[in-house]
Amino acid sequence: MVTSNVPVVESALLEIANKKGIKTGRDRLAEMSPQCGFGELGTCCRTCYMGPCRIDPFGDGPKTGICGISPDAMVARNMLRETVGGAASHVGHARHVLLTLRDALDGKAPYEIKGETKVLSLAKIFDVPTEGRTIVEVCRELVDIALEDFGRQDELPNNWVSKRAPLAEQQLWKDLGLMYSNPHNEIETAMHASSMGNDADPLSLMLRVLKLSLVDGWTGLTLAVDLQDILFGTPEVSVTEAAVGVLEASSVNIATHGHNPILSEKILYWAEKMNDEAVAAGADRINVVGVCCTGNELSMRHGVKLAAHNSQSELILVTGAVDAMVVDIQCIWPQLAQVAKCFDTAFITTDPMVRIPDARHIPFEPQHADDNAQEIVRAAIEAFGQR
Amino acid sequence: MVTSNVPVVESALLEIANKKGIKTGRDRLAEMSPQCGFGELGTCCRTCYMGPCRIDPFGDGPKTGICGISPDAMVARNMLRETVGGAASHVGHARHVLLTLRDALDGKAPYEIKGETKVLSLAKIFDVPTEGRTIVEVCRELVDIALEDFGRQDELPNNWVSKRAPLAEQQLWKDLGLMYSNPHNEIETAMHASSMGNDADPLSLMLRVLKLSLVDGWTGLTLAVDLQDILFGTPEVSVTEAAVGVLEASSVNIATHGHNPILSEKILYWAEKMNDEAVAAGADRINVVGVCCTGNELSMRHGVKLAAHNSQSELILVTGAVDAMVVDIQCIWPQLAQVAKCFDTAFITTDPMVRIPDARHIPFEPQHADDNAQEIVRAAIEAFGQR
Repeated sequence: MVTSNVPVVESALLEIANKKGIKTGRDRLAEMSPQCGFGELGTCCRTCYMGPCRIDPFGDGPKTGICGISPDAMVARNMLRETVGGAASHVGHARHVLLTLRDALDGKAPYEIKGETKVLSLAKIFDVPTEGRTIVEVCRELVDIALEDFGRQDELPNNWVSKRAPLAEQQLWKDLGLMYSNPHNEIETAMHASSMGNDADPLSLMLRVLKLSLVDGWTGLTLAVDLQDILFGTPEVSVTEAAVGVLEASSVNIATHGHNPILSEKILYWAEKMNDEAVAAGADRINVVGVCCTGNELSMRHGVKLAAHNSQSELILVTGAVDAMVVDIQCIWPQLAQVAKCFDTAFITTDPMVRIPDARHIPFEPQHADDNAQEIVRAAIEAFGQR
Repeated sequence: MVTSNVPVVESALLEIANKKGIKTGRDRLAEMSPQCGFGELGTCCRTCYMGPCRIDPFGDGPKTGICGISPDAMVARNMLRETVGGAASHVGHARHVLLTLRDALDGKAPYEIKGETKVLSLAKIFDVPTEGRTIVEVCRELVDIALEDFGRQDELPNNWVSKRAPLAEQQLWKDLGLMYSNPHNEIETAMHASSMGNDADPLSLMLRVLKLSLVDGWTGLTLAVDLQDILFGTPEVSVTEAAVGVLEASSVNIATHGHNPILSEKILYWAEKMNDEAVAAGADRINVVGVCCTGNELSMRHGVKLAAHNSQSELILVTGAVDAMVVDIQCIWPQLAQVAKCFDTAFITTDPMVRIPDARHIPFEPQHADDNAQEIVRAAIEAFGQR
């Protein structure tokens, strides 16, 4: 076990894990070390099946890949695919929220518009008329503006970046050829450009990395934040508590882990509604705590306490006090399901795209959010009974 | 140099390369061998920056990645990203042809509809009325049907797969959850699912590999073939010649290499038109030959002779007889530019996404196809003068 630089808050938990023979990320990192130098440098290419090719820039071996690609281009190409992974994740998150908002406006998903202020401020930015219109009507037009970006094949400027980003920056990006139209075109083209026998120029590849970072930032992060603020309200600064101590010995502890408040907001809502069921099962109450980014979403809108950041997510499970860990998307270590098994913690996956061996899968669909969330909270109460 | 299993046609060229000290793919493969066993098995993960993680399934080392991912899931996740690379490439190719066809119908790109039979047969398949309508009108509706697939966020069945694929297969795919709606949604979701902390179930990941293979096959290959047949006519079986001997000692030899007939058709057209310029420069004629898949496109529609397949592409350059190698997208080894330099061969890249160090870049835009193609052919004639 690597014990240097261990935050105080983790020491006791690592000790428990150690005593119980449960390995943690720190152990696995130590076992994996020294990590592959080619991989760390980025001079390893598995893009096509002539490879794998590896280049040691300090040695006497090959100086290019089998196709002739240079180590610089290899590094840039690998970085581009990593960047696409991030951009696709954030764009996918935003698109999921967008479609949920559309369903909510059409009465097909049980979510309200809590962020009227945000709707009005975005309407102003996007020149959407508000006079004599309902919030739903205004909001529907904003949804259409966002959807247009995903469907366009006209190479016209992307709505979200051109209305939301600072104008001076936009000029800089235009001059560098970094402005984009359809985010999905860019994801497709980046995966294409990074395939065998396409872009081999490190500069061209790195410019595309920057372009994808704009896709990530504006159609991913900014769009998601805007839409989440519409659905759940704009967060305000608040005081809260953090670290493993926020778990309560006699409560049903539900840890929400992941990124998307579409799930965690409903878990929080139903946890409050179903508190009596928990009391009937012998608990003081239901205590929803946050892990990782969806924890942050709940924290900044409702003051929910943060139990752990991403790399502490397995550590809070060794307390045995987490009755259910409910996860949506991104940063869900598969190891969590293995640790949860040791403590009868219900480890619940919910997204069709996030399947983890040994997890319990309760599908969560925004259209059936209330039913699905109740089933999940009930599973947590049951798990409390089995402590 | 690896000399075993060398096709007869390559032996003489390898000998020349060897004498001149030019290394080929065979040499680079030999130098790269033994190739990395982790990479070959797929049990190497560079998905996130906790890694690189490597698992030796036969050794005593770590049995999971730092996040806890299993080697099976690692392999499946790597394979998914490789599959996305292929699907994005073919979908990107098809989309490029689709937008070129749209431009052609709008009079914005100098391409005709040579495949009226194909238009009519597709109209029947897609229930597009033809009675009393021009070919352009019918064709425009087909373009809209194809474009709809890229823009849809309605989860309705993809037009191209549901109309073009055999019904019995479609039922099988539906039962397995493999049918798709918007190909770009699938590319985004696959890159998302294969990012850190999402899908960790090998079965779920491999099903997504199959789904992306359908995207590749129907919105990539089938759509591209359909549209290319509309623009350039449906190929017929013809007799042609192949291998390096199709180069002519006293002609301006132009090798078209890549995949997309949008470029190579125009090169062939203008090579015939500009034959007098070549004769004036002292050549017998202009001899357009094919390399790789765009060579195949020209071969099956015009009987153009094939000089080389993909891995012979660098070998034909060591003849010194290729005056220009003109490339578009995919399978363009960066090494080609280095070999071309040794022989004053003009190595010309044309696509904004395919930049190669030491290549000459002449941008080819379908809207300006005739001007761009003439510039490229003229560059080849000039290179002939410098032999």
